[in-house]
Amino acid sequence: MQTKYVYFFGNKTAEGNGKMRELLGGKGANLAEMNLIGIPVPPGYTITTEVCNSYYQMGHEAVTLMIKPEVEAAMKRVEAAVAGAKFGDKENPLLVSVRSGSRASMPGMMDTILNLGMNDEVVETLAKKSGNARFAWDSYRRFVQMYGDVVLGMKPQNKEDEDPFEEIIEHKKKERGVTLDTDLLVEDLKDLVKKFKAAVKKSTGKDFPSNPWEQLWGAVAAVFNSWMNERAILYRKLNRIPEEWGTAVNVQTMVFGNMGQTSATGVAFTRDASTGEAIFNGEYLINAQGEDVVAGIRTPQQITMEGSKRWAASQGISEAERLAKYPSLQETMPAVYRDLFDTQQKLEQHNRDMQDIEFTIQDGKLWMLQTRNGKRTGAAMLKIAIDMFREGMITEQEAVLRCEPEKLEELLHPVFKKEALARAKSIAKGLPASPGAATGQIVFFAEDAEKWAGEKKKTILVRVETSPEDLKGMHVAEGILTSRGGMTSHAAVVARGMGKCCISGAGTLMIDYKARTLTVGTTVLKEGDWISLDGSTGNVYQGQIETAPAEAGGDFATLLSMAGKHSRMQVRTNADTPHDAQVARAFGAQGIGLCRTEHMFFEGDKIWPMREMILAKDEVGRRKALAKLLPLQRKDFEGIFEAMQGLPVTVRLLDPPLHEFVPHDEKGQEEVAKIMGVSLAEVKERVSNLAEVNPMLGHRGCRLGNTYPEITEMQTRAIIEAALNLKKKGVQSIPEIMVPLTCTQNEMKMQADIIHATAKNVFAERNDSIEYKVGTMIEVPRAALTAEKVANYAEFFSFGTNDLTQMTFGFSRDDVSKFLPVYLEKGLLKYDPFQILDQTGVGQLVGMATVKGRSVRPSLKVGICGEHGGEPSSVEFCHHIGLNYVSCSPFRVSIARMAAAHAAIKENK
Amino acid sequence: MQTKYVYFFGNKTAEGNGKMRELLGGKGANLAEMNLIGIPVPPGYTITTEVCNSYYQMGHEAVTLMIKPEVEAAMKRVEAAVAGAKFGDKENPLLVSVRSGSRASMPGMMDTILNLGMNDEVVETLAKKSGNARFAWDSYRRFVQMYGDVVLGMKPQNKEDEDPFEEIIEHKKKERGVTLDTDLLVEDLKDLVKKFKAAVKKSTGKDFPSNPWEQLWGAVAAVFNSWMNERAILYRKLNRIPEEWGTAVNVQTMVFGNMGQTSATGVAFTRDASTGEAIFNGEYLINAQGEDVVAGIRTPQQITMEGSKRWAASQGISEAERLAKYPSLQETMPAVYRDLFDTQQKLEQHNRDMQDIEFTIQDGKLWMLQTRNGKRTGAAMLKIAIDMFREGMITEQEAVLRCEPEKLEELLHPVFKKEALARAKSIAKGLPASPGAATGQIVFFAEDAEKWAGEKKKTILVRVETSPEDLKGMHVAEGILTSRGGMTSHAAVVARGMGKCCISGAGTLMIDYKARTLTVGTTVLKEGDWISLDGSTGNVYQGQIETAPAEAGGDFATLLSMAGKHSRMQVRTNADTPHDAQVARAFGAQGIGLCRTEHMFFEGDKIWPMREMILAKDEVGRRKALAKLLPLQRKDFEGIFEAMQGLPVTVRLLDPPLHEFVPHDEKGQEEVAKIMGVSLAEVKERVSNLAEVNPMLGHRGCRLGNTYPEITEMQTRAIIEAALNLKKKGVQSIPEIMVPLTCTQNEMKMQADIIHATAKNVFAERNDSIEYKVGTMIEVPRAALTAEKVANYAEFFSFGTNDLTQMTFGFSRDDVSKFLPVYLEKGLLKYDPFQILDQTGVGQLVGMATVKGRSVRPSLKVGICGEHGGEPSSVEFCHHIGLNYVSCSPFRVSIARMAAAHAAIKENK
Repeated sequence: MQTKYVYFFGNKTAEGNGKMRELLGGKGANLAEMNLIGIPVPPGYTITTEVCNSYYQMGHEAVTLMIKPEVEAAMKRVEAAVAGAKFGDKENPLLVSVRSGSRASMPGMMDTILNLGMNDEVVETLAKKSGNARFAWDSYRRFVQMYGDVVLGMKPQNKEDEDPFEEIIEHKKKERGVTLDTDLLVEDLKDLVKKFKAAVKKSTGKDFPSNPWEQLWGAVAAVFNSWMNERAILYRKLNRIPEEWGTAVNVQTMVFGNMGQTSATGVAFTRDASTGEAIFNGEYLINAQGEDVVAGIRTPQQITMEGSKRWAASQGISEAERLAKYPSLQETMPAVYRDLFDTQQKLEQHNRDMQDIEFTIQDGKLWMLQTRNGKRTGAAMLKIAIDMFREGMITEQEAVLRCEPEKLEELLHPVFKKEALARAKSIAKGLPASPGAATGQIVFFAEDAEKWAGEKKKTILVRVETSPEDLKGMHVAEGILTSRGGMTSHAAVVARGMGKCCISGAGTLMIDYKARTLTVGTTVLKEGDWISLDGSTGNVYQGQIETAPAEAGGDFATLLSMAGKHSRMQVRTNADTPHDAQVARAFGAQGIGLCRTEHMFFEGDKIWPMREMILAKDEVGRRKALAKLLPLQRKDFEGIFEAMQGLPVTVRLLDPPLHEFVPHDEKGQEEVAKIMGVSLAEVKERVSNLAEVNPMLGHRGCRLGNTYPEITEMQTRAIIEAALNLKKKGVQSIPEIMVPLTCTQNEMKMQADIIHATAKNVFAERNDSIEYKVGTMIEVPRAALTAEKVANYAEFFSFGTNDLTQMTFGFSRDDVSKFLPVYLEKGLLKYDPFQILDQTGVGQLVGMATVKGRSVRPSLKVGICGEHGGEPSSVEFCHHIGLNYVSCSPFRVSIARMAAAHAAIKENK
Repeated sequence: MQTKYVYFFGNKTAEGNGKMRELLGGKGANLAEMNLIGIPVPPGYTITTEVCNSYYQMGHEAVTLMIKPEVEAAMKRVEAAVAGAKFGDKENPLLVSVRSGSRASMPGMMDTILNLGMNDEVVETLAKKSGNARFAWDSYRRFVQMYGDVVLGMKPQNKEDEDPFEEIIEHKKKERGVTLDTDLLVEDLKDLVKKFKAAVKKSTGKDFPSNPWEQLWGAVAAVFNSWMNERAILYRKLNRIPEEWGTAVNVQTMVFGNMGQTSATGVAFTRDASTGEAIFNGEYLINAQGEDVVAGIRTPQQITMEGSKRWAASQGISEAERLAKYPSLQETMPAVYRDLFDTQQKLEQHNRDMQDIEFTIQDGKLWMLQTRNGKRTGAAMLKIAIDMFREGMITEQEAVLRCEPEKLEELLHPVFKKEALARAKSIAKGLPASPGAATGQIVFFAEDAEKWAGEKKKTILVRVETSPEDLKGMHVAEGILTSRGGMTSHAAVVARGMGKCCISGAGTLMIDYKARTLTVGTTVLKEGDWISLDGSTGNVYQGQIETAPAEAGGDFATLLSMAGKHSRMQVRTNADTPHDAQVARAFGAQGIGLCRTEHMFFEGDKIWPMREMILAKDEVGRRKALAKLLPLQRKDFEGIFEAMQGLPVTVRLLDPPLHEFVPHDEKGQEEVAKIMGVSLAEVKERVSNLAEVNPMLGHRGCRLGNTYPEITEMQTRAIIEAALNLKKKGVQSIPEIMVPLTCTQNEMKMQADIIHATAKNVFAERNDSIEYKVGTMIEVPRAALTAEKVANYAEFFSFGTNDLTQMTFGFSRDDVSKFLPVYLEKGLLKYDPFQILDQTGVGQLVGMATVKGRSVRPSLKVGICGEHGGEPSSVEFCHHIGLNYVSCSPFRVSIARMAAAHAAIKENK
């Protein structure tokens, strides 16, 4: 069968359908699907994503030849569907839009061309047929401008530079003494088109193309080219979208929102994208086209009356002014509004998710241009999932899958401390475009935000409005504040996608880019001054406001309990203190997967007996010092075991090289000498003996416990005695003693022998006993490769994927900054392997060791306790290779639980 | 079938045979075999090595119960074989010897008891029956002494202390005014027995056991215990003999060499163990028993007349004195000698190897007590193998297998420089017990030799005679010199086994342990003075003598060419200079497996442009410096390619971290600042920026070439241009460009792309081309784990097992001294994984990567270039997993070639 490159849709039929996202892109698939469920959509066709890949393999000309027959045939079907208008025809011309549409939504990332097919003859016909010369010429000048910018590459690369077309418009407005585009007359527009064309000729050396087919092929190529523009590449990188997916191209009959007062264009959400409330909402502009609404150039009006009133209140606009200047669609076109309301309901029901829709009203008739699952904040994601489950629209499993683990982190973002907020001074109010609390120093340019972030400064990016070029800066800023644009403006949509706090359309702000100041009334704030944003209320505050950690409750708790029901893998936490243990337990941690004992030695006075042990000349001296440490460690363990009572606690024996515990500066060494009662020279010599060329690969981990068995003895004694003490108080401890950095089975055997012998002694002394386990970290490649031997002596494995990654890659985490950024930049690595588990290499070892370990000990408990334990894709991988648990930092526990549930649910599907 | 624990032999029948070494030990198997081929051997039986293992599992009592029935039955068969003598019988008593015998020969390592079964009644019967009361009582006192020492543990642990029995003998001799044991009368011997027993009672609190069965079980246990004594453990460690092998126990009818002037005992070699010459030789003592010959207490006499004359000449003894005091066996007992000569020939023919035999002559009748393949020097090993092949006794393959690769290294040991030797002063002459040239400082105690070795001092251990307690000291000394003992003395045998230079029996030396002096005539040398030994001539020189490297030729070259014929795997060399390349080529290297380019940068003025490159601020600056390096590198490559013309040369691109090239001291930095014309502060800052926490895992290897592609470009250009320049001169170069430290396939792809593009450019510029390959080191675990991806861009793999071991174990080679010695001591590691390839872990990765790599590229050439490439067991492993070549340092090439041949021949067997 020959490959099909082009899919027609229109008049309630379609060659594609909603499930064909991969081939048709999200937009194309949804346009087809809307036709199939009887929603009015302007006829058109979709050129597949496969053609995009061919474009990058074969080049423009070859691809055009390849798809030309199908495109021409599809165009004929469109012409038939719109009852005889013809593309390129002078008498009854058909105009089209050309839009990108990839598998994953990439809002604002790629380029769009409207009104294509227009030329000097067509504009006259259009003026005649519509009886609206102004509309015809406005459409023409928009087309020339868009085509010049996007297809002919006239949009300035440097955003400091003015768009050449906008310059001409500004000049014209000044000349005519008007401020709004809509105040320009037909003659003005005609003159603009003329001047635009001259600018094109001057810039490209060629005449503006008047042949519609030439226009079309140029536009198709421009869409494909936009897949590889800098913004799109960055967006894919941030959202981990593979380059191979490609974009489809949608060619669709134009409908016009700019045909006069009975025409309009708008965007809407079926529920609130910020809070998740089940309230239909959106914005529209009368006599406007396409991008006008989201571009933030005119202030858009609300679709619903209720929304309109709320908006006016937030802007300090009176009801009378609102009705006069900003009436809702519900008020201006009640019939169309009802139609729109029904349609959005139908779309949400059909797609079983909150929809983000685009529509155009042409001369009183509603056309849907797009529907897609709407981007939303973490809070909205949560509420919508739980609500839809309660409404019976989706299953419990679906509700869980709807909540992306990583996005839940937003709900764990700090909030302003109540008492600090009470003292704060609100200087302005804008739209609560994306919730959260942000505090930072004002910057006005995205580049500065990036630079300041490099200097570890917290920034708030303040702009009149944002554009795709600001993406990097938005990414590093704590929050975003704009003086123009609505809830669906670029700033609002992108910020919500990033889970970043954003206030948009704070109209009382006066921003002076040149002076780098922000003025509100009499208050003048300069670049570098501190402000704070409450993205949930829209309040802008002067100065810094203290924040507090978030708490889990309500829907969040419900979601986590749903996740727990559908998971197979357990989630533990890495915690070294009773406080951390409690926090994690509140988030549902099912035990401690990693309790690092060394951190305890740095607390308070514990460092001194530790140093005494390190500086001891022989075993006798070490034992003396260890005897002092014993009661201190025992007390630490009592605290942690009590906090986790009834749940397992994995205690890792001493791991870091001993030189980490001694001071390396002369002053510190003098102090040590004084307190220890030895000479400074002696301290210096010992410290210098401890130095290592590659400390990562040196005398640490169980190499300490195997060369100084008395350390393992002391730590084991502290653990067992603590558990026995608690047992007397009726508190159950489940200690799991973990040997770090095992490389050979003999090391594991020696440590296990010491631990079991010590425990036996303590049991005999106390005439009492408890259950405990002995296992090991697997963080050295050799241990993974020989896991079937190590498991002979280990009852559990816990993969220390931080160190395992270091040794498997040969990357020192402390030194990787010398080349890792270049590697990510050049694409030698797709991501930082310390953030996302390298499934191919490190994961191969993890999987291999799990299989080998269980081959000799089927009951082997296997987990992971590196930082990957809280990263969703890594957690899913752990599920798939059959681990029993992951362990992560307390604030990542809920994210890991969600990821574990996702993995299990997807597997069962 | 029930396990058989005891194997009888005697009267030309045997239950075992020569192939049952594993079960019966070497001695037991050979005793059985000698019976089977009709050689007179005193009847006896062997308790298997399996019983030894049971002994360590079950303990003494249980094992005794287990084997008792079989031992008693075997004893009955022995009694029958010796025509009615009975073990423990008063009228016709049977005496036995009890000896150890493990699978591998461990000379002098374990304990032996002779004359067992003796008691107060038996001695009288024996005196009566033999008509030789002196013999009977001498045997009795020997038995009590040996049993007391070995079984009852009275041998002093501290060798400074006198043996309690020797003390009694010395006292008796003084009392009687005699100096030789043989001058003691029957009454003296009777008194000694009485005193010995009293000493036993005093020391153990118990009477000396008079029941022969009780004696036997005690002796059997003592043999098993000796398997775990310190000497045996150390010997196994040095010779890599597994503990699980265990030792067998041989219980054998006593024959007596101490029955008077027609009795004797001796040891002999069928060929010269030092030079390999086909000359029967050995030593004997009349009226002596067992250990007397090797113990060095009496000066043994030569077996052959020719040997006797040669010996006398070396000792400055006249023919008259020789005939009077030291006549040969050939002269004293010509008939027995002829019998012995025939027997040794038969044994060598039967065993097809040089034999080390023990015999006893009882009252004119020859009995063989042992035969085994004789230990020999590397030179003898080589000569015997080649001679036996020429004699048609063994095949070419067997001749190759007979030559242990590691032992060949002795032939590569330095020899004295001829001109230096001519100037040297010979102060004494001893027996050329083990060849080689050694120069060092005199020490008199093994402990001092160890201590001085720790201080990196070269020592010569000088002793009257050595004993097993001196083993460690002998191991670390450069050479060994004794004033007593023959060619088969402890010192001689052990030194040959170690491949260590030894001169024994240099009788003119006067050693004073207390004064720590060595006197020869009027020359008095003190501890710490330098002497030199020529182990091939027996000459002792005063002072230090310069040495020179050995050369390969003669039999050695023949052997290597035989090895080459039977190998599958090639052997290359690691060489960075034309000189090294030539040396290796002379030893038969088949190419360069690793040419490290970085060493070149340290030579002469090359360091300066290198530093300029490192300190450059940007790519332009780096390129400027690289342009200066290009002609220098090109010249280096021309030299190496020319030296290896026609053979492949693997050039590794820049590998070490850049900080290795800059000075870290202020003075050096000042020099750099001056020469570079920059400020000292600037140099300091750059040097400190280059510092890394874990340089092993830092910015090095292809991470340099991927962040600074211009380095790879320059090096590729230098390689290709050098090859093209040589091509013009008619010299063929086969460069293989090797990318170091590859971790991901993308890194490999990027480097390969740069190399191919650069080569293409150079070819175009020169309008000429050559063949070349691009491949990679596999030294990062991840590269091995993902080899099927890396191989897409690599035409060859070379395993850098040094770094691969570091990362797989997590052992920094520079820091491992902090725990590796303890690990080896405690048995946590069996050997240093940097010396011997860890087949289980690292080898697993090597095997896996080879299979994965070839799965996508069947033509993939695979080799190893770590230091393991010259270690025989590692080389054999490489053969078995199918590598194409190993590469090692020039002086290891011949050893690697032998190991490769061994592997191939064994595989084909």
